[in-house]
Amino acid sequence: MSWQHIAAQKKSRQLDDVPEDWLQSTLPAADTSNVIDFLQESIALSDLDVEVTESSVARLLYSLATGKWSSVQVTTSFYKRAIIAHQLTNCLTEIFVDQALARAKVLDDHLAQTGKVIGPLHGLPISLKDQISIKGYVSWIGKVAEKNAVLVDILESLGAVPFVKTNVPQTLMWPETFNHVWGRTTNPHNRSLTCGGSSGGEGQLNPLRRSVRIPSAFCGLYGFRPSYNRLPLAGCVNSLEGEDTILAVLGPLSNSLDGLKTFYKAVLSKEPWQRDPMVIRKRWNEDEYRLADHGKGEKLCFAIMWDNGVVMPHPPIQRGLEMTKKALLAAGHEVIDWVPYKQDEIVSTILQIFNAGAGEDFKTETAPTGEPIITSMALEDDDFVFFPVNTGISTFESWQLQKKKRDLRQEHMKHWDDTVLRTGTGRPVDAIISPIAPFTATPHGHMKTVHYTLPLNLLVSSPLWLSMTPCTRISEPYQRQDYPAIVIPVSKVDQALDVKRPRTEFYNTEDQQIYERYTPETYADAPISVQVIGRTMEEEAIIAMSEVVDEALRVSNNCVEAVILPN
Amino acid sequence: MSWQHIAAQKKSRQLDDVPEDWLQSTLPAADTSNVIDFLQESIALSDLDVEVTESSVARLLYSLATGKWSSVQVTTSFYKRAIIAHQLTNCLTEIFVDQALARAKVLDDHLAQTGKVIGPLHGLPISLKDQISIKGYVSWIGKVAEKNAVLVDILESLGAVPFVKTNVPQTLMWPETFNHVWGRTTNPHNRSLTCGGSSGGEGQLNPLRRSVRIPSAFCGLYGFRPSYNRLPLAGCVNSLEGEDTILAVLGPLSNSLDGLKTFYKAVLSKEPWQRDPMVIRKRWNEDEYRLADHGKGEKLCFAIMWDNGVVMPHPPIQRGLEMTKKALLAAGHEVIDWVPYKQDEIVSTILQIFNAGAGEDFKTETAPTGEPIITSMALEDDDFVFFPVNTGISTFESWQLQKKKRDLRQEHMKHWDDTVLRTGTGRPVDAIISPIAPFTATPHGHMKTVHYTLPLNLLVSSPLWLSMTPCTRISEPYQRQDYPAIVIPVSKVDQALDVKRPRTEFYNTEDQQIYERYTPETYADAPISVQVIGRTMEEEAIIAMSEVVDEALRVSNNCVEAVILPN
Repeated sequence: MSWQHIAAQKKSRQLDDVPEDWLQSTLPAADTSNVIDFLQESIALSDLDVEVTESSVARLLYSLATGKWSSVQVTTSFYKRAIIAHQLTNCLTEIFVDQALARAKVLDDHLAQTGKVIGPLHGLPISLKDQISIKGYVSWIGKVAEKNAVLVDILESLGAVPFVKTNVPQTLMWPETFNHVWGRTTNPHNRSLTCGGSSGGEGQLNPLRRSVRIPSAFCGLYGFRPSYNRLPLAGCVNSLEGEDTILAVLGPLSNSLDGLKTFYKAVLSKEPWQRDPMVIRKRWNEDEYRLADHGKGEKLCFAIMWDNGVVMPHPPIQRGLEMTKKALLAAGHEVIDWVPYKQDEIVSTILQIFNAGAGEDFKTETAPTGEPIITSMALEDDDFVFFPVNTGISTFESWQLQKKKRDLRQEHMKHWDDTVLRTGTGRPVDAIISPIAPFTATPHGHMKTVHYTLPLNLLVSSPLWLSMTPCTRISEPYQRQDYPAIVIPVSKVDQALDVKRPRTEFYNTEDQQIYERYTPETYADAPISVQVIGRTMEEEAIIAMSEVVDEALRVSNNCVEAVILPN
Repeated sequence: MSWQHIAAQKKSRQLDDVPEDWLQSTLPAADTSNVIDFLQESIALSDLDVEVTESSVARLLYSLATGKWSSVQVTTSFYKRAIIAHQLTNCLTEIFVDQALARAKVLDDHLAQTGKVIGPLHGLPISLKDQISIKGYVSWIGKVAEKNAVLVDILESLGAVPFVKTNVPQTLMWPETFNHVWGRTTNPHNRSLTCGGSSGGEGQLNPLRRSVRIPSAFCGLYGFRPSYNRLPLAGCVNSLEGEDTILAVLGPLSNSLDGLKTFYKAVLSKEPWQRDPMVIRKRWNEDEYRLADHGKGEKLCFAIMWDNGVVMPHPPIQRGLEMTKKALLAAGHEVIDWVPYKQDEIVSTILQIFNAGAGEDFKTETAPTGEPIITSMALEDDDFVFFPVNTGISTFESWQLQKKKRDLRQEHMKHWDDTVLRTGTGRPVDAIISPIAPFTATPHGHMKTVHYTLPLNLLVSSPLWLSMTPCTRISEPYQRQDYPAIVIPVSKVDQALDVKRPRTEFYNTEDQQIYERYTPETYADAPISVQVIGRTMEEEAIIAMSEVVDEALRVSNNCVEAVILPN
């Protein structure tokens, strides 16, 4: 059977399981850009549906645990909202209503009979990126999962209710979400913009339900990218499997920092190292969360990366960083400038490590169906091939690249340590504040060349590695150091504030191209985020420091309002 | 300059720094097999030298901290003993008397002036495997270290006194210790036997001073192989650098379990993850040491691997396992049989991963001097090439091997978990007890083929990865699962007890060859050891469980004596 046929068949059955009255017959016109508000006005959602799906994770869990809301009710509300989101942005892949509601019922019955919850995520619906296998469902076309991914087992043991899977790019290696089976996913804040990738489906599903979890900088959510091997990847589908040097990473997205923390602590409490041998045996450390290694958080020093010297960030990104600096200073913390280190060399090493075998990998994976390898995210085809289907290099040559990567990592550690001379705290910089990309969400297809994705790698984060299993291969932690990071939404593009500033000198052609693409109109309503980056395996500390940043921003924004309103 | 010339020059200057009166003019005849007792009778050592060098780590540290013994005294005593050991077995490489004694003096002065120790290892001499770089000394011929390895910095900050470096095999990938620069190192218990490798120099240095640290199963010492990335490897010299899937591991050897624990806790206390980005941020966990995950150690279940089905262990090894079983049962613990899992497949995968680039690596490393690659450990040359100098395989092919390795690891975890049905404790097996190799130390050159080293890999451990930086590439933890393990000496070959038993059926040719090589006479006096193997990153628990095994053996051995003596 041809891949076109398989894909069409798959797509045609996607909504088989969905009750007809959940589907919206009247949708906004195709050229309606911002569809965020459509839901509030949708008659398909009851007042309770809206209340449920706009609750915080903490409130949902409390309401579920006390029996105020049943899991069947909560799951149904989320389904209704997710289906509309899907109609608006094409974010879902697998939808298994019967299975999820049956599970919700079991949980409700358990609570009714015993008065006890199954676990800390009792009754909470959770969406999963497509690569996370659920028994009986497809994660890679033609491959039906024989068992759950380890993470799914753990989430179920915690009481969660997986209810949908979300779209990803082909090979998972693209920073936009598009593939031959499910098509392209768009950004609900502005449907002419991308939702990012590889976890694009997750990223846009969240703002559309404004709840539970799973964001991305492009979609205005909180996202957490832990270090390698803290959360279990076993049983997930992936590309470049066996590439052991730059690892894929799972991480949650949520509408609040508390959601990220709740998720992370809950998963660790189930000792994932007992089920996935790659996971590091390390429990949640409350001392580290209390910033024992960072002067108890009394006076922190953050370093802001304003510009990596390769691509200058767009005006909204700069404004986001300035807002963050101002907020942190007002809260009594130190803020210094971060000096980028060997960005070009690090990125070039990363790309060479992937390219060492990526071509053969993609070719092998697509061979059974003959599905063509996507060579561009552009709306129309062009000639650029992101991962050339070449014959790769020898293992010995790869070892040399890996040695170089290790040495760069050691150098970067020293670079960070040397900031001790500038912080005034007696410690090196506690965390780096950095853009996620030099731009907010971009128009579809604009991430079509290596040169456009390079800055993403340089400036890091990006939604890709932020989502319930961001396959993070292409957008690794800050400069490939395996640094954990948390994305925090700061604001949205404001056409009055984020005006284009004149520039005549550029670092390079890409810098100029990215500069030229910017107009406040194009990026209207796009969320602005920053990321807080910590040292390898400082997950607890980076959650705590992100809380500091988030709270500082909240206070700072309220003060601005307080100042403005009385006038 | 030819490699022969460089090597000869190096060797000729080896003892330049050593005071003449430390060198023994009368040595045992070359055919004297067991030289362990020679030292006691040596007039070169004073009574105090003997007392110092035969003290436990705990006693040494106490005596140093209280000023009973100065570090200069202790270091001198160890030097004198080490030099004799070197004359007997050719175990040392770099000897830096002036530097070490100057450092010892600084420590003594500090203690005298402040009344305080520098750290928990204050004044303790420590020997280092040759690959651990010390600033100004050579770790790879022609390459003078520009700075200390991270571990050396940490040991110095803890108060230790590095005083000698010890011999290793060429490429560090051999299970015997021989190279073109320093020659062959022998086993002091029986000089016709090998001391093992790659840390052969360490292994035999220890029994000859019966103190401080660094053993191997072949030399009758305690040895600790932690999981990947617990102790810092940064700054050490290695072969196969950049090979990121099967990692080298550092670990201490000592004459007591307490020595291993003291070393490990002390190094972790210095937060090595702050200096080497590869090291996992995980502090010593006292709860895990108290066996919180193993029913508080009240009733443990050990599984004994009697025979891996590939090579049957020699009679002394079997007796060592039987003694251990008996001791553990007498101490009230459970003992069941371990069922080996896919040994051939795991070993074959390991070897393929190394071979993927090893040939090119060795060729590149030896090219500058033209030093020939050692192709056999045999005393006379033969044709067998252990690591063929081939062109290796592609990166993509290596990824497939690495994926297979990961899958085997996941399967092995399940295999271990499934023992929960047989233990009677409600938990899976707490630890595995296994031979280190199917034989005790073997005659020189007997580890000359892959087929002889395979069983070593299968049955694991081996001295190679047990020593102050066992480059453990070739003898990884049990079946490549990254399991931590501790080697415990049990007994010595007893020609009356360890008789050869008739066998007519063999698993394969190697099994038959290894069987045929055994005679109690050949292996006279060779130490018998077992290893205790835990789950990945269970360092604390495996130290605690090894204490249980060691104590059970001590009690059991005393009981036997108690029974025999009254008769």
